[in-house]
Amino acid sequence: MGPQKNTYIRISLPAVCFVWQIAMVLLFGIFIRYNEEADAHWVEHKQQHNLTDIDNDFYFRYPSFQDVHVMIFVGFGFLMTFLKRYSFGGVGFNFLIAAFGLQWALLMQGWFHSLDQDTGKIYIGIENLINADFCVAGCLIAYGALLGKVSPVQLMVVTLFGITLYAVEEYIILNLLHCRDAGGSMVIHCFGGYYGLAISWVLYRPNLHQSKHNEGSVYHSDVFAMIGTLFLWMFWPSFNSAITNHGDGQHRAVINTYIALAASVVTAVAISSMFHSKGKLDMVHIQNATLAGGVAMGTSAEFMISPYGALIVGFFMGIISTFGYVIVTPFLAKSLKLQDTCGVHNLHAVPGMLGGFIAAIVAAFASDSVYSHQGLINTFDLTGEYASRTMSTQGGYQAAGTCVAMAFGLIGGAIVGLILKLPIWGDPADDNCFDDEAYWEVRADAEDQDELKVV
Amino acid sequence: MGPQKNTYIRISLPAVCFVWQIAMVLLFGIFIRYNEEADAHWVEHKQQHNLTDIDNDFYFRYPSFQDVHVMIFVGFGFLMTFLKRYSFGGVGFNFLIAAFGLQWALLMQGWFHSLDQDTGKIYIGIENLINADFCVAGCLIAYGALLGKVSPVQLMVVTLFGITLYAVEEYIILNLLHCRDAGGSMVIHCFGGYYGLAISWVLYRPNLHQSKHNEGSVYHSDVFAMIGTLFLWMFWPSFNSAITNHGDGQHRAVINTYIALAASVVTAVAISSMFHSKGKLDMVHIQNATLAGGVAMGTSAEFMISPYGALIVGFFMGIISTFGYVIVTPFLAKSLKLQDTCGVHNLHAVPGMLGGFIAAIVAAFASDSVYSHQGLINTFDLTGEYASRTMSTQGGYQAAGTCVAMAFGLIGGAIVGLILKLPIWGDPADDNCFDDEAYWEVRADAEDQDELKVV
Amino acid sequence: MGPQKNTYIRISLPAVCFVWQIAMVLLFGIFIRYNEEADAHWVEHKQQHNLTDIDNDFYFRYPSFQDVHVMIFVGFGFLMTFLKRYSFGGVGFNFLIAAFGLQWALLMQGWFHSLDQDTGKIYIGIENLINADFCVAGCLIAYGALLGKVSPVQLMVVTLFGITLYAVEEYIILNLLHCRDAGGSMVIHCFGGYYGLAISWVLYRPNLHQSKHNEGSVYHSDVFAMIGTLFLWMFWPSFNSAITNHGDGQHRAVINTYIALAASVVTAVAISSMFHSKGKLDMVHIQNATLAGGVAMGTSAEFMISPYGALIVGFFMGIISTFGYVIVTPFLAKSLKLQDTCGVHNLHAVPGMLGGFIAAIVAAFASDSVYSHQGLINTFDLTGEYASRTMSTQGGYQAAGTCVAMAFGLIGGAIVGLILKLPIWGDPADDNCFDDEAYWEVRADAEDQDELKVV
Repeated sequence: MGPQKNTYIRISLPAVCFVWQIAMVLLFGIFIRYNEEADAHWVEHKQQHNLTDIDNDFYFRYPSFQDVHVMIFVGFGFLMTFLKRYSFGGVGFNFLIAAFGLQWALLMQGWFHSLDQDTGKIYIGIENLINADFCVAGCLIAYGALLGKVSPVQLMVVTLFGITLYAVEEYIILNLLHCRDAGGSMVIHCFGGYYGLAISWVLYRPNLHQSKHNEGSVYHSDVFAMIGTLFLWMFWPSFNSAITNHGDGQHRAVINTYIALAASVVTAVAISSMFHSKGKLDMVHIQNATLAGGVAMGTSAEFMISPYGALIVGFFMGIISTFGYVIVTPFLAKSLKLQDTCGVHNLHAVPGMLGGFIAAIVAAFASDSVYSHQGLINTFDLTGEYASRTMSTQGGYQAAGTCVAMAFGLIGGAIVGLILKLPIWGDPADDNCFDDEAYWEVRADAEDQDELKVV
Repeated sequence: MGPQKNTYIRISLPAVCFVWQIAMVLLFGIFIRYNEEADAHWVEHKQQHNLTDIDNDFYFRYPSFQDVHVMIFVGFGFLMTFLKRYSFGGVGFNFLIAAFGLQWALLMQGWFHSLDQDTGKIYIGIENLINADFCVAGCLIAYGALLGKVSPVQLMVVTLFGITLYAVEEYIILNLLHCRDAGGSMVIHCFGGYYGLAISWVLYRPNLHQSKHNEGSVYHSDVFAMIGTLFLWMFWPSFNSAITNHGDGQHRAVINTYIALAASVVTAVAISSMFHSKGKLDMVHIQNATLAGGVAMGTSAEFMISPYGALIVGFFMGIISTFGYVIVTPFLAKSLKLQDTCGVHNLHAVPGMLGGFIAAIVAAFASDSVYSHQGLINTFDLTGEYASRTMSTQGGYQAAGTCVAMAFGLIGGAIVGLILKLPIWGDPADDNCFDDEAYWEVRADAEDQDELKVV
Repeated sequence: MGPQKNTYIRISLPAVCFVWQIAMVLLFGIFIRYNEEADAHWVEHKQQHNLTDIDNDFYFRYPSFQDVHVMIFVGFGFLMTFLKRYSFGGVGFNFLIAAFGLQWALLMQGWFHSLDQDTGKIYIGIENLINADFCVAGCLIAYGALLGKVSPVQLMVVTLFGITLYAVEEYIILNLLHCRDAGGSMVIHCFGGYYGLAISWVLYRPNLHQSKHNEGSVYHSDVFAMIGTLFLWMFWPSFNSAITNHGDGQHRAVINTYIALAASVVTAVAISSMFHSKGKLDMVHIQNATLAGGVAMGTSAEFMISPYGALIVGFFMGIISTFGYVIVTPFLAKSLKLQDTCGVHNLHAVPGMLGGFIAAIVAAFASDSVYSHQGLINTFDLTGEYASRTMSTQGGYQAAGTCVAMAFGLIGGAIVGLILKLPIWGDPADDNCFDDEAYWEVRADAEDQDELKVV
């Protein structure tokens, strides 16, 4: 591996883009239609059901949707601009795979969740758009582990399989196991994190140290990354509440997430300072570990975990995640040959997994007295065949769901990793990683030019 | 032209600002009042009409308004920071002309649309604020063609006339021709694009190559521009749905725009790669052509174009727009002497015009069976004197409206261009373009200082 | 003072973070619970009170809350990145103190405003989250005066006392004096501004000129700061309307703030150009003085000040604030030994104070004919023991409230300043200010490395 590698993608990238985009047009033409709230027949529908316009789900969810949308494109995108010479790839490929992925997600999730058996059509509305964005988030998390080491064509493959795996594990966890996972600690973060880690592990590059000079940040690239961090942090309450129940469900999920995130910041700062010989803070920790509380609250945000429960979750996640960046990531790189560019192990995989188990415990202890009888039924959707499920059983299923998410991530990622080892994808050589020059037309900087003049 | 030019604006800029701002105070005093939803009499109004607070239009439109507001100030503003030494002018003058323009727009649009004949007052509410932001967007698009080549005083003139022309063409298109144009493919993008191009054409600078060293981006200015791109891209569904009908109208416009934009990204990437000798991507295309689907869906977003229809529109717009950046802009610069700094021809003028004609076709084929009878009437507002208009007639009027927008842009722009040729506006010499030093106090950079030390 | 100073905070910062965060967990456990709109009992509550989900206050305030949240973390945070070598500290410490402060604010404001006397619990919902963000804003304003000259441990102290003082003055002004102050001209801006100025005055550094080389911006740090400016500017209408009355109250506050801010931009530009020998604009003025209209409209945004009234307020605030940056700040630094890094005197203290007095006048002239009888009662909450208060009395109380805010800021700030003079807080020496190296692990920049190679 090395000099013989070729990053020429002039044929493969356009080919993949066009083939897949044309497939999307055909499949959308066959399957996708507006649901009754977005169709012009709404005027008839609302008369029949005695509704007014404000009852349209659009008004309950659109503000949250737009916040989620910002997290996907600016949040994840700018968080990955921190590398000194891979900012274009960070924000640009994030843009590409999210835009492609959400189309495929509308189809995959539609087939599993919104397919009308009579007409064979998928009827979409605002909640489908939110779920498509969620689905894409899983792939963007995986991208965090691969940042700078793969080609855009490989990322399209990661996304195609990632969305597919996501839709299946989500169906198993939410429908078959009947788990709750509003903010996706399990289905998004745990799955996405382990999916990316498994791929990265299979694609291990023994000579990655040859790109050492490009790994790491410069002053302004760290400030750019803070744009990503802050938009993720601020809008995480919207993420965890976007598809929860109307009324108290959305309201409570926002409060819990807001509180958990605040605690994460304070403990992440404490640990970051503690592990530096002079007590200085590390931007990597501030950019990432401050978000761990939001990840871990993903599943239990809609539960009656109580404000201090949320605070405790955030408290420990800030510690665990920062500790991961200081100790675990270097250990994994050395011992397990796991190269995890953004540390998704510490921000998504572990906090997501822990969030799943925390929610299992919170669910197991849920009771009529805390939730009210109807409140408990609404929160856990204990209707139909699930009406008689006890809360300890529900807790068990929540824990099982977390394991399913992890298994899908690890096994699916290993298989996709093997596919990506084929020598046809135009990925960079070991001494050419973390460098935008490989896939982007990069103009010489004014500063560079001035320096040339100095010479 | 050249050394005799003088960018001294210490008298003209403050004079223009003060004269116009004082005029605004006087005209607001004479004309502008709160409408019944923003007036303290609302408490009586809602009792009389049996309403509750949630029926206030504020709650239907405020989230979309704020998204549009972000597009105007951060979206357009940061998109224009891409030049290496004109970022202050890009985001700063955008700020100035938008803040001035929205005041004048409230008046101009108010006289045409919200004037109460009995009291002679303009009653404003949230929808007027959205429309003022829309109106300003036309002028900011025009600024894209002029970026780096004009003085702020000229930009104030461009804005004053641009808002005025906009209000007139909008009145003709929406009221006299009774077209639909919720997201403004015609009235905003097509008009604004051709307005800017015509001005730029009249102001042709034969020796602009003398500023060649400042044209183009540096690494971090391209990352700044991505902030603009992404906020425009993410919030475009809000733009196209901000003033559509409550309920299904807003819901459907969001879905269509979301889908069209996703397709634009994928095809823009494909074409960008295809036209580079090594398949590398060009930031200019990613920053701009990815948005073309949103422009072209402006008019038909509220129609029943169907999700795959939106996908097809986005598909072709990504191709056409990128193609424009690669082939058409250099051609226009050479053959037509048209200097279009941001390529508004490819992002606004052409996709806007095509969006107008696409909507004409979609409208012509609209039917009771697809929309429901009442749905068709609501969507196209076929009430009163328009109750008997057939859909093919409506299609014809939509096409005519597109031509009106283009004509207003071209003729109005040519006239304004001639006014701006007067030697009184403090515009920069040909060798002094694209340089913030002309109008901004620019501090020496740390890097520059270090380099001086090196010397 | 000087070389003997030590910025070692490896023990103090983690200790303060952990002690305070553990205290938060305990106090949240004892006091804080969900209110009836966020509790799972909502399903019973809404049946009892014949409500539907859309009546949940969440849907009236959540979009505004998220905008406010962006202002606190991105707005204030990025506004403070303008210094060439203190961007990490600007955005990073802003993040830390806001995340800590909002927890303490939930408790302090809860005890004063949301404590249930029967159960001894604080019941929180979306309005508490908004108020906590507001409360934090006061401390972030104070940070603006101290930027670059204090340690993060000192900032935690500033925040702890700042939140406490805020909650008390807010209780006096809103509850005891029964003032209205929806957008916080008095309780947030006037208090926060004078609080920061008093601290800065006590902490006067006679040899701060030794850090002169780090004071000031570079090209790209000024562009980063514009992110902060624009998000503050765009979302200020949400700030001033976030906790106003449902319906016309929120609607009117948005319109007034939108208009006032637009005028501020135009006059700030005019004055900035006028005071430069060649008419050039200064980024400091554009970044700050353009916001002064929003500050000054904080109290009267919900009043019937009328659109032209708002325009006049914005008009003069843009002038006064820019004038402050040009003339007053240098004067204060020289004559009063007041070192105000961000010029909070011109952006918050003075416009906040003036906003308080303007509102006193507007309130004094409020009448049944302008507001309607019920509208006047609703707007000024003239119910219960205040039902018979005349409007001129209300005006007097508003003016008194402004004086209370100022007094709390000045006296509280002086005391906190004295506490911060203790030699235990790890603040930097006079020749080490405005430098991220003191508290952050700063990697060498690519540019710096290249320059080293050149040498």
